[in-house]
Amino acid sequence: MKYTIGIDYGTMSCRALVMNAETGAALGGAECGYTVYDTALPTGEKLPDRAALADPGEYLQALEKVVKSAVKDAGIDPKDVVGIALDTTSMSLVSCDSNGVPLCMTEKWAREPLAYIRMWKSYTATKEAEEIGRVAKENHMPFLAACGGNPSSEGGYPKLLETLRKNPALYDNIAVALDLSEWFAWILTGKMTRSINTMGMKNYCGDGKTLPPDAFFKLVDEKFADVNKKMQGEMLPWGSKAGELTAEMAEKLNLPAGIAVGSGMLDGHSPMMALGLKESGDAMMTIGTSGVLCVISDRHEVIDGICGQSFNGLIPGFYGYDFAQSGVGDMFGWFVENCVPGKYERMAQEKGVSVHQLLSEMSFPKPVGESGLVAVDWWNGSRSIVVDQTLTGVITGMKLSTRPEDVYRALVEAAAFGMRAMRDALEDKGVAVKHICVCGGIAAKNPLLLQCYADILGSELRLSTLPNSAAAGAAIAAASAAKVYDSLPDAMDALSSREFKLVRPDMQRHQQYEALYEKYKQLRKYFSENK
Amino acid sequence: MKYTIGIDYGTMSCRALVMNAETGAALGGAECGYTVYDTALPTGEKLPDRAALADPGEYLQALEKVVKSAVKDAGIDPKDVVGIALDTTSMSLVSCDSNGVPLCMTEKWAREPLAYIRMWKSYTATKEAEEIGRVAKENHMPFLAACGGNPSSEGGYPKLLETLRKNPALYDNIAVALDLSEWFAWILTGKMTRSINTMGMKNYCGDGKTLPPDAFFKLVDEKFADVNKKMQGEMLPWGSKAGELTAEMAEKLNLPAGIAVGSGMLDGHSPMMALGLKESGDAMMTIGTSGVLCVISDRHEVIDGICGQSFNGLIPGFYGYDFAQSGVGDMFGWFVENCVPGKYERMAQEKGVSVHQLLSEMSFPKPVGESGLVAVDWWNGSRSIVVDQTLTGVITGMKLSTRPEDVYRALVEAAAFGMRAMRDALEDKGVAVKHICVCGGIAAKNPLLLQCYADILGSELRLSTLPNSAAAGAAIAAASAAKVYDSLPDAMDALSSREFKLVRPDMQRHQQYEALYEKYKQLRKYFSENK
Repeated sequence: MKYTIGIDYGTMSCRALVMNAETGAALGGAECGYTVYDTALPTGEKLPDRAALADPGEYLQALEKVVKSAVKDAGIDPKDVVGIALDTTSMSLVSCDSNGVPLCMTEKWAREPLAYIRMWKSYTATKEAEEIGRVAKENHMPFLAACGGNPSSEGGYPKLLETLRKNPALYDNIAVALDLSEWFAWILTGKMTRSINTMGMKNYCGDGKTLPPDAFFKLVDEKFADVNKKMQGEMLPWGSKAGELTAEMAEKLNLPAGIAVGSGMLDGHSPMMALGLKESGDAMMTIGTSGVLCVISDRHEVIDGICGQSFNGLIPGFYGYDFAQSGVGDMFGWFVENCVPGKYERMAQEKGVSVHQLLSEMSFPKPVGESGLVAVDWWNGSRSIVVDQTLTGVITGMKLSTRPEDVYRALVEAAAFGMRAMRDALEDKGVAVKHICVCGGIAAKNPLLLQCYADILGSELRLSTLPNSAAAGAAIAAASAAKVYDSLPDAMDALSSREFKLVRPDMQRHQQYEALYEKYKQLRKYFSENK
Repeated sequence: MKYTIGIDYGTMSCRALVMNAETGAALGGAECGYTVYDTALPTGEKLPDRAALADPGEYLQALEKVVKSAVKDAGIDPKDVVGIALDTTSMSLVSCDSNGVPLCMTEKWAREPLAYIRMWKSYTATKEAEEIGRVAKENHMPFLAACGGNPSSEGGYPKLLETLRKNPALYDNIAVALDLSEWFAWILTGKMTRSINTMGMKNYCGDGKTLPPDAFFKLVDEKFADVNKKMQGEMLPWGSKAGELTAEMAEKLNLPAGIAVGSGMLDGHSPMMALGLKESGDAMMTIGTSGVLCVISDRHEVIDGICGQSFNGLIPGFYGYDFAQSGVGDMFGWFVENCVPGKYERMAQEKGVSVHQLLSEMSFPKPVGESGLVAVDWWNGSRSIVVDQTLTGVITGMKLSTRPEDVYRALVEAAAFGMRAMRDALEDKGVAVKHICVCGGIAAKNPLLLQCYADILGSELRLSTLPNSAAAGAAIAAASAAKVYDSLPDAMDALSSREFKLVRPDMQRHQQYEALYEKYKQLRKYFSENK
């Protein structure tokens, strides 16, 4: 028997999955939480606003726990494990010495926030991202195409520029700065590699291999000219072997030494492997805390306002495109938390449904446009297509007869309009989006909401029934890395889950939504120009 | 001893007040409710959407009750009553035969909705109001100045045009159509008179005496050319004697026959007499279900978007200006009803305060602009200055950190911005608004809200502590009509209440509000042009 282990490192916890590498069956799993440090360090130091840090020591402890527990849960002999791979949140930056030791784990830097894992949502490098963007635009740098023209403060370069500005001595001490999943691969194999997924989609390597030139970074800051020394390294596509499990880590994890360790990958993207997306035009839509649209295509076009695009950046052999909305589930949750009267809470309780469910049942059966409301979904700023985190949400059409369920639906429609705008931005440039698979808890939990998305997009949606799809994607990548199959596509053919619930659009409603969508676009235009 | 009785006919009930006509002391009162027919007639006939009718029979019964009860409550000898006057909602149209009998009280028309009292808020003549406005604009009719360029569907002429269109036979049977307070004066005196207050502020008689020309109404419809025959009659200013109480009514009300009956007046305006407003620049601001700003001035200017303006239309001897916002208290009530979570309701309960109070205490102490929210107060359309009842409310600046109290404050600010826009529209034309008296329950109940208005207006506000100010205004008018005083100004000097609580603006906050007010005006402009 051959088994692989995929591990998904999210923001709050990690989940391991043991997969039968011949059948794709999920045999067992385990989960372990850890801390997001957003007010103070473990050592007590206060953190600046919007910082979000993590402790690599806790992450390593969690790794040991979930691997051992998952193997136990699966009831397999650990000797039969042939490969392991991890996906993580990204870009979560780890600043290391030349041996891969995170600097926060050295005595010298244990009290320095910038030496910790700086998570994707650590938004303290906003100024530096703007600065890199400004200088890049002034100098017409081609790498801007890989980030839609707007470097995000989530990326590695802005975070390193922040380190240089705030603590030059720390900056000088960084030998290698890498993404969390790349760091894990290094720790497991003793060998530093990078991931095209991370470097391409998050760090401007649009061709999947080339860093932005040193000369550019010199224009940003004389002392920043050497930053690529910290960012270089062989970039591997999904399904590659980063190396072999070291004896030391094998002992800690109770796995065979020398088994294949897969290259790094991003948690929001790895489900694509589990869903078996491998044709030009295949897309994955996520309706979660935020909204994501990932598309693979034969066609290369520069898309304005995209989050990231790169050759080999997602499924190898394709151009990968990644769009994201900043707040989707967050916004729905905000509404239920802050805007729903007590009588609705009681109604939901009496019916034995969630407030989301109640509002959905009350609002979605109504005719399109009946409430007269149109909202703009910028409660958490806008990541794509209008790239501006300072933008805010709007509701229009309020009347004395407006009811909470009407506003809830308007927010869902706004999120779906935002998704449609991202899809259309690709299609307008000839990057066809043919098949949309959906994952994310909200889509599965709320069929009425998903139907609304289908109606607005005017597209059939394929709702995946796979739980834990990110870890499953990692386990498939591990099977490819372990050469259980000749290639990643072969591994996906054998192991991915193609069970979908089809959600067909109501094309009459789709037509009726056109007028509202036009209004939505007008409002976006006005409010992006008139903040 | 000399006493007068003032009676205030509101939408849901009437309130009588017995006043000592020498000291102004309120000696007693009484209240009596009646029905708004908005789904079916008393006879069972279904009503169209947005109709709001009343039964004159019920109103007369209520009159008997409240007069007798108030006299009893005051403990006075009814023989000492020297005058009586009524204010009513306006324009509430009563269609009568030549004896003042409302046609709904005749057997022939008892089942015809258009024959009942058509209340101010009976919005079924929207099309007719638009039609009159369109023809008037095409023909550059000067009377348009008296209604800010936009005839309201509340007015008498649109309602009569509606009758002509929907029931020409009924139209032909109407000998006299008048406002409710004019009808009451007729019933009490046996003599038909009109009120400049009603005719000037609601029916386009901007000079306080001249009806729009017959030739104009002929342009609207050949058969409408005779409408002025139904609308003519001597127009009396406030404080005039409409006639003397008939023996028949004296018996019904148990009052002396022959006492003075004051001319008709509008409920929203009559408090001006009770507050003693009688200098150019004096203003009354009402923060109630809707928002009202009434100003008297020596200066005559045509103000675009005003609801009504007329010489002698308010306090005699001045040009009267009347601005109104469609939804103010309505909008705050909507918010508390529909947008406040259960945990806030529980918090308010625990603190023993209303939800309005809780939200106010949570939000108003915060710095100006902190929430980033700016709203437009069009939840119930816009009556002034942008005149369009189809407009709707807007909230901008929404974030995941936005809390209910922030939105509540934004709605209050929007209402205050709307009030400021009306005030500024007068001042921009040189019609100074010097002293603003405030009445309306919300202002008295919520000092934090009123302070917000003062800060936004940048003006001292004089909060009246007088209860039942409309009926008090009517009682003062009755004292003038009864010649207890030589003139209405003398009666006001002797009887009005000049006790005010002064609310001073925080001028630093006023400055800080400028940027938000600019944003508010921008949003109004955009959304009035892009519905």
